[in-house]
Amino acid sequence: MKIDVAEGSLFGLDNLPYGVFSTPGTGPRVGVRVGDQVVDLAAALGDEVFAQPTLNAFMAQGRRRWDEVRERITELVSGEVPDAAVHPVRAVTLHLPVAVADYVDFYASEHHATNLGRLFRPDSAPLMPNWKHLPVGYHGRAGTVVVSGTDIVRPSGQRKAPDEAAPTFGPSRRLDIEAELGFLVGTGSELGSAVPVEEFAERVFGAVLVNDWSARDIQAWEYVPLGPFLGKSFATSISPWVVPLAALEAARVPTPGQDPAPLPYLTEREPWGLDIELTVSWNGQEVSRPPYREMYWSPAQMLAHMTVNGAASRTGDLYASGTISGPEKEQRGAFIELSWGGREPVVVNGEERTFLADGDEVVISATAPGTRGGRIGFGEVRGRILPAR
Amino acid sequence: MKIDVAEGSLFGLDNLPYGVFSTPGTGPRVGVRVGDQVVDLAAALGDEVFAQPTLNAFMAQGRRRWDEVRERITELVSGEVPDAAVHPVRAVTLHLPVAVADYVDFYASEHHATNLGRLFRPDSAPLMPNWKHLPVGYHGRAGTVVVSGTDIVRPSGQRKAPDEAAPTFGPSRRLDIEAELGFLVGTGSELGSAVPVEEFAERVFGAVLVNDWSARDIQAWEYVPLGPFLGKSFATSISPWVVPLAALEAARVPTPGQDPAPLPYLTEREPWGLDIELTVSWNGQEVSRPPYREMYWSPAQMLAHMTVNGAASRTGDLYASGTISGPEKEQRGAFIELSWGGREPVVVNGEERTFLADGDEVVISATAPGTRGGRIGFGEVRGRILPAR
Repeated sequence: MKIDVAEGSLFGLDNLPYGVFSTPGTGPRVGVRVGDQVVDLAAALGDEVFAQPTLNAFMAQGRRRWDEVRERITELVSGEVPDAAVHPVRAVTLHLPVAVADYVDFYASEHHATNLGRLFRPDSAPLMPNWKHLPVGYHGRAGTVVVSGTDIVRPSGQRKAPDEAAPTFGPSRRLDIEAELGFLVGTGSELGSAVPVEEFAERVFGAVLVNDWSARDIQAWEYVPLGPFLGKSFATSISPWVVPLAALEAARVPTPGQDPAPLPYLTEREPWGLDIELTVSWNGQEVSRPPYREMYWSPAQMLAHMTVNGAASRTGDLYASGTISGPEKEQRGAFIELSWGGREPVVVNGEERTFLADGDEVVISATAPGTRGGRIGFGEVRGRILPAR
Repeated sequence: MKIDVAEGSLFGLDNLPYGVFSTPGTGPRVGVRVGDQVVDLAAALGDEVFAQPTLNAFMAQGRRRWDEVRERITELVSGEVPDAAVHPVRAVTLHLPVAVADYVDFYASEHHATNLGRLFRPDSAPLMPNWKHLPVGYHGRAGTVVVSGTDIVRPSGQRKAPDEAAPTFGPSRRLDIEAELGFLVGTGSELGSAVPVEEFAERVFGAVLVNDWSARDIQAWEYVPLGPFLGKSFATSISPWVVPLAALEAARVPTPGQDPAPLPYLTEREPWGLDIELTVSWNGQEVSRPPYREMYWSPAQMLAHMTVNGAASRTGDLYASGTISGPEKEQRGAFIELSWGGREPVVVNGEERTFLADGDEVVISATAPGTRGGRIGFGEVRGRILPAR
């Protein structure tokens, strides 16, 4: 069959994101999205690397191979595709597209870091002295990265408000989101070697949307001195479609400007800022439009930093940008910022909200300029809050 | 053949630790150590679960199966073992025994946390307000966990001394160790569910020694507000032999006492403190004897805490205790404590040392009471420092 792509589709031939899907009675395997169809790559290309339940084997094959496959897919879907290899996206189940190796979360938005600093440490300078010298980051829990659509059970834990004498145990009362962009390492690097900023496009396979669910009350009590732990580790959702780096060529922009100039190992010769526009919807109502182009540190700088100490990287490593917040209030990518620590409720469908209520649903989506003049999309990351168990 | 176990061996029939070994021309597979011999379990028991390059498949089978196999091995090595299944430990190569899923590092020694607080934050209370309410921990880099004997390349990164105006880039000048005990999860738990303290022995397969190599200068500059990252992520070494939890029955002791009483989800009904004595050798000279029995939080409490927010756990999850330090100076498990931030050098073989020099070698070993009246051993974790690249 010939695959129709509607005018203005976010999934035209300049996008071609990869995912892992299944249909009733068949196991998970790799597909590519074209318009509203999923093309079964194992069936269409006859290549066993796609007959697997994750993208990892393909991701490990490297940039040259990724480029070849992208060309082959472009040819394939421009012509006749065997009927048996095409499934409407509505008829498939989408799975976690990768086996996540290590998961790192950065903190690369100056606006977000400044807002959080004001909220968590009102008596000190909002940005720490290190913040403009290095992309601050930490390791998260790879085993709780889940695919869009997975319900999120409200986490329980220890919380202590500043006016309470001792912590209490119970469901989080300040459950929040963080709208982020995540990057997936395809070809890793060995222990003892560093990845230069110039190797970003050689190493990184593509990008996904990330919702780094955050229990702010648990986080505020636990995070000194070793950083966030249970306030984050209960779940991190990612979008099912991995947008190849090649599809983001037209989105590349310089970062907004770095002062002081970063150390040589963080100095970019090519721009890897990205002009991606996110949208955050809360129970169906758009509440924020975080602009990725405002991020202080680029993903190439993050990868160079993450490995400069000789840490190995592996196929399937996921690293996320940290919350994307712009300078305007309606560009903030976390509810703790939108509601200013809960003091300025947001009206969602006529109801006042500060943090997430049980039953609430959050959808993060994003678009970027495509290479054919229109726009491409990321596929959304969606999650609904279930009551604490 | 009949396997001889020398009188006083740390690897008698009350130990039987598991590891992954290879011999020239054959691939890695599971073995058990008896005296100075390694028994090839796939060959001796004819079970394919041991014909694999990691312990994960066996670890996933659960407590009942671990107990059955331990009984079978005890019978086997008490009688005649086929010659082809026995290899002298000196003739085999030992490999990383598990595919590490997530790696978490705790901070469970009150003496260590107090010492580090004094050194890193001399102007504040050494213990944070949360410390006696929960086992503080954070996620580390699973992909850089390496087996004993792996050389450690000195990491480079950003360091800034308090009297310097800006950070500089270069090899760490304050490279340190942390002597720890690590626990390996055998049977995991699902997203949204918590593991009660009572389930520790059902879930945890065994223990290893851990050296959490730490670049103190990199760590001090980067760690606010999100915790240690590159100061730790370049390498974490573990011992090749996994001591089964069943072998530690005689080592169980109550923790030293917790005040305030922990919240109910952290309250133990059975003691899971462990009377394990570690030894740290620096270039062959013993410099410290950290006592595990002094740890404030037990490993059962750590696992309960790590999952109380509903975070899933997986086969192969590794969580470590944090540096083991006792109340005495000669019981401190990190060189930053032994040398008090570099101000009180340690004399090692006649040479003054504060932090690690290139070429230095550190060996951590440990023993515990066995169930037959003698002692059992952990097998050492060894590492040598190579110059920065």
